[in-house]
Amino acid sequence: MEEHMKTQVAIIGAGPSGLLLGQLLHRCGIDNVILERHTPDYVLGRIRAGVLEYGFVDLMREAGVSERMDREGLVHGGITLSFQGRREHVDLKALTGKSVLVYGQTEVTRDLMAARQASGAPICYEAEDVQLHDFLDGRPRVTFTHQGRKKTLECDYIAGCDGFHGVSRKSAPKDRIKEFERVYPFGWLGLMSDTPPVEDELIYVHNPRGFALCSMRSHTRSRYYIQCSLAEHVEEWSDDRFWTELSARLPEDVAAKLVTGPSIEKSIAPLRSFVAEPMKFGKLFLVGDAAHIVPPTGAKGLNLASSDVYTLYHALRGACLEGRPELLDRYSEIALRRVWKAERFSWWMSMLLHTFDDDAFSQRIQKAEQDYYTSTRAGLTTIAENYVGLPYEPVA
Amino acid sequence: MEEHMKTQVAIIGAGPSGLLLGQLLHRCGIDNVILERHTPDYVLGRIRAGVLEYGFVDLMREAGVSERMDREGLVHGGITLSFQGRREHVDLKALTGKSVLVYGQTEVTRDLMAARQASGAPICYEAEDVQLHDFLDGRPRVTFTHQGRKKTLECDYIAGCDGFHGVSRKSAPKDRIKEFERVYPFGWLGLMSDTPPVEDELIYVHNPRGFALCSMRSHTRSRYYIQCSLAEHVEEWSDDRFWTELSARLPEDVAAKLVTGPSIEKSIAPLRSFVAEPMKFGKLFLVGDAAHIVPPTGAKGLNLASSDVYTLYHALRGACLEGRPELLDRYSEIALRRVWKAERFSWWMSMLLHTFDDDAFSQRIQKAEQDYYTSTRAGLTTIAENYVGLPYEPVA
Repeated sequence: MEEHMKTQVAIIGAGPSGLLLGQLLHRCGIDNVILERHTPDYVLGRIRAGVLEYGFVDLMREAGVSERMDREGLVHGGITLSFQGRREHVDLKALTGKSVLVYGQTEVTRDLMAARQASGAPICYEAEDVQLHDFLDGRPRVTFTHQGRKKTLECDYIAGCDGFHGVSRKSAPKDRIKEFERVYPFGWLGLMSDTPPVEDELIYVHNPRGFALCSMRSHTRSRYYIQCSLAEHVEEWSDDRFWTELSARLPEDVAAKLVTGPSIEKSIAPLRSFVAEPMKFGKLFLVGDAAHIVPPTGAKGLNLASSDVYTLYHALRGACLEGRPELLDRYSEIALRRVWKAERFSWWMSMLLHTFDDDAFSQRIQKAEQDYYTSTRAGLTTIAENYVGLPYEPVA
Repeated sequence: MEEHMKTQVAIIGAGPSGLLLGQLLHRCGIDNVILERHTPDYVLGRIRAGVLEYGFVDLMREAGVSERMDREGLVHGGITLSFQGRREHVDLKALTGKSVLVYGQTEVTRDLMAARQASGAPICYEAEDVQLHDFLDGRPRVTFTHQGRKKTLECDYIAGCDGFHGVSRKSAPKDRIKEFERVYPFGWLGLMSDTPPVEDELIYVHNPRGFALCSMRSHTRSRYYIQCSLAEHVEEWSDDRFWTELSARLPEDVAAKLVTGPSIEKSIAPLRSFVAEPMKFGKLFLVGDAAHIVPPTGAKGLNLASSDVYTLYHALRGACLEGRPELLDRYSEIALRRVWKAERFSWWMSMLLHTFDDDAFSQRIQKAEQDYYTSTRAGLTTIAENYVGLPYEPVA
């Protein structure tokens, strides 16, 4: 027996993008249903970045989900870049008037899950075999199986927030989607530990041995990364080996005060740049990782999903509440403009700080980029204004 | 029979670098002799760029050779970049407080030649078979043949201002010099004509058909360039074909007012980035094109030679007049710092504006660079501050 439901917006995926969009829509009275193929614990188990742009923070406040984030998040007014044995401080606050907030993506998701539950708005975990229908020119429907029962969700719009491997992008007609990709010849080996961070702010390190990043989740939880070969396996990296290699890459004064400890998570992730164009197919809208991936340098992944959510949320408000469905036609164009700028910055910062097996001229150009961009206020400001996040563009 | 001469500084090459260095040294009482293998007419026949950074202009004034340049040069407070059918104005003056001066390299050379002649300081054209000796750890000598007679010039220092193909860099010991090079897969086809420039300021154009540049030498003389294949020959390009192709690449409103006319010069030049390190070998100092080549995008060639001249001039003053020869030990390090920043900018501006047969991701990144750098004041300022020239670094 089939079960039928109706809603205004079907949201595919209960990661932070889907949950945030759902929460924003719910608060302004737009009905929505979230479908997620995994369990809540699985979703929370995915460790991601922990640096939030001010625009993301504002959007969480607008969604009414900022109470714990505002209390526990660490305001960072600067970052440090280190190369050629030097340290260069990028004073985000002085250069842009803005800061970023260190608060783990897992915590963002947890808060959004709690808000969803409190709102009573429908969310369906372990939705299997999700399929999108008739979104190009008919009345969209999502079919799925839940606890062995086939269900159909009728809707006005579908928001594909289900990530790179999700069904949403794969449902777009092959002849109407164009994909852009860059694969980098290395990965990041990350280690999380319940040790105090080596410094109050993040340190991005370029070293002949490879890139390293000193990051954190809180005053007592650190997150470190080192560039590694894609041929390596995480089992080959004991905690000791990781700490030794990390120390060898850090500036001496930083290495000297590094507090090590047992890992609570350790994993290798490849670096990839990916964009799918367009981000709208009829009444299906791709959001966040479903449409684009950035390498983690600069922590733009979640933040970029957030500006998609912002743009789609305002366009859906226009369509559902103000009788202006034409605003939705501009979603892809507006979102992609910011997507490509963030892709550019993530690519650029990756090129600036990783170690490449490159020709001698390219290596000198990398050094000249490091030298130039940290030598003038304009250069530093380009880093800072991208790091805190370029402005969200209104839909109008 | 051999003829012996003595001087403090032997300058190899009577292009603008050698002449400017000679003039500066002469004015502060440091003896110097310039040797040039070509005739004055040959030297003046080389057509080069015509955009002078403010630092170069200041140095010409310091050398007392600015009278005609200040009268006839055109002060440019901005440039235009055009891409994706848009025009973006880079207001150099508003962004940096500085301008550039449009005045042809040929005119600079002519003025410096006249000053050399007026000063009575020795300059020897058509010096053949120039060879540099004992500059590494002995007392330097330059031998050459002039009008069939062998001559020897003893000196304290040798300034190698004889360009990429000159003898100076080739005289450096092979095991102590390192060369960095990038060759671009296209060239510039340039045309000079006695027609009024299409606009008051320079226009740099990115077009799917290829890069184009509208430049000038004066209110009545224009200089235009178009990106071309390296397989092409200048004979295949009639004036008509050039003007037609140029028009097709310009924004429509610019093309509409283009004034065409017969060419007075037309040539194809390849684009190359090249740096030799170090720029000092004992008492031999490489200056300008002898040590580095930039692609012409951004017009840094002569300007970069000028900052080498500035640095070497001040170091030689320290060595010859103040008893501080140790200043010369810093020449290479100081010069290369600015060289690599200018190499970076010339490479970057070339990558930004040319059409490449590239993967789809790279093409989108190029577009994102165009969009980002012209969308914020910081981005525009990085273009402007490099275009007017980064500051010269004092030797101290």
